Formats: sequence, C-alpha cells, structure tokens
Amino acid sequence: MKILSVVETAIYVDDLDAAEDFYQRILGLEVIASEADRHVFFRVGESNVLLAFNPRTTCTGDTLPHHGASGAGHFALGIESTSLDDWRRHLEANSISIETEMEWPAGGKSIYFRDPAGNSVELITPGVWQLPSGW
Amino acid sequence: MKILSVVETAIYVDDLDAAEDFYQRILGLEVIASEADRHVFFRVGESNVLLAFNPRTTCTGDTLPHHGASGAGHFALGIESTSLDDWRRHLEANSISIETEMEWPAGGKSIYFRDPAGNSVELITPGVWQLPSGW
Repeated sequence: MKILSVVETAIYVDDLDAAEDFYQRILGLEVIASEADRHVFFRVGESNVLLAFNPRTTCTGDTLPHHGASGAGHFALGIESTSLDDWRRHLEANSISIETEMEWPAGGKSIYFRDPAGNSVELITPGVWQLPSGW
Repeated sequence: MKILSVVETAIYVDDLDAAEDFYQRILGLEVIASEADRHVFFRVGESNVLLAFNPRTTCTGDTLPHHGASGAGHFALGIESTSLDDWRRHLEANSISIETEMEWPAGGKSIYFRDPAGNSVELITPGVWQLPSGW
C-alpha cells in the first residue's frame, strides 16, 4: 500500500487553444485527449499526464468531483542536463522570456518561464532532489 | 531536446501543518523540505515531488518567480491495482470520505477524496492512460 508516483498534474488556463498551442508546439507534448471548453490533456514522457482545465467548467463538477483554481499555478518538467542550452535557445526563438534561472546547491539547474495563462513553468535537470530515478 | 516527466507538482493549502499531517501520516509521503509559513515538500516514489505551498507567501515571489492559486486544485497519485481496496479501507479508517469512484473505459480505477485544504486528490491504478511505464 504505497504511492508510486504523481501520475496527473493539473493546471488551469483561461484559453485552452492557447494552452494546446504552447504545450504541443513549443514544449513538444503530445495531446492525448481534449473536450471543447473543458480540457486538453498532454502525455509527458512515459509516466505522466499534464491536465489543462478551464476552471469555469470544472468548478461546477459533473460526474467527477469539482475543482478549479485561479491564480498562477506551478510545476516542473524534467529534462536532460545536456539539453538545457538548447531549451533556452528554443524558448527565446519562440519569444518565450526566461523569467529566472537557478543553479541548485545540491545539483541541477532550472529555468522558469510563463505559459500563456501565466502559470509558472520550470524546466529542471537531474540532481536537485536526489531522486532515485534521476529522471 | 525532450521533456521526460513531470517532476514537481504544486498544490496550494491554507494550513501547512494540516497538509503535512495529511500527506505524511495518512498518505505516507516522506517530507523532504519545509519552510515555516511558505511550504512543505514531499517525495513521491522514485521520480516525483509534491510541493504544498502557502499561496499568501509565494504569490509575492522572492528569488523565485511568484505563483499561488486559490480554489481547489487537482492531481492524481499512482498506486498498484492490488492496493486499491486497502487504500479505501485505510482512508475510511482515518475518516477521509471517498467522494467518487471511477472505473475507466480503457482500464484502471480511481478513487477521489479531499485534502484538508479542499484539493481534489485522486488515487489511480495503471491502465487509464496506457502509459508505457504502467507506473
């Protein structure tokens, strides 16, 4: 009886089309499900799903429990250390401003930028959390 | 240049002590970092970190970009199929109400309940997303 991983992470966005364009075209995530005015879901690697919801729809609930937040959310996506410079160039080439860069005391680096809804997205390299998987 | 996983997932809570008790004692997650009035972080399995933030602190930013949401967030934690009945009993024994149960068309089951801050927590078994890792 053990929790093995975070499978799904949710963010809330005011414009699902803008979110789909950003996460699919700029970040390269595959869309695996969508429903007009409600959600677009993306597969992330081999183990995770990013859920982008319109909170005006999900806050009322339906067959599933209600949820939905306002304000900037935050999450971190794992990348290889060797790809960080390429990611920085790719984001800048697509007019995505890097808001902050961090080099963590225990190892690993992060770059932070915003999605179109204002959520704080972090790309992070292995080392920070000393996770057994690296990732 | 590829995103490999969701490493960190953030939730927002009004009471960090209540969140720590809930996620550590009830869900069995290990606390890996905490800062009074700001955050408590939990390791989840081998690849993930759950970040619980006080949004009143993080919404102003500091050395890191500001973020912070109000309203119920949502995320899903992966468990083994064989542990679902034990989890149901464990939650009920700790007075955590199961809000909804789902059996998904493509396979897999979910149970939904609330954390003390009202976030919608889902325990999910493999099959739902046909992820290569199972999890």
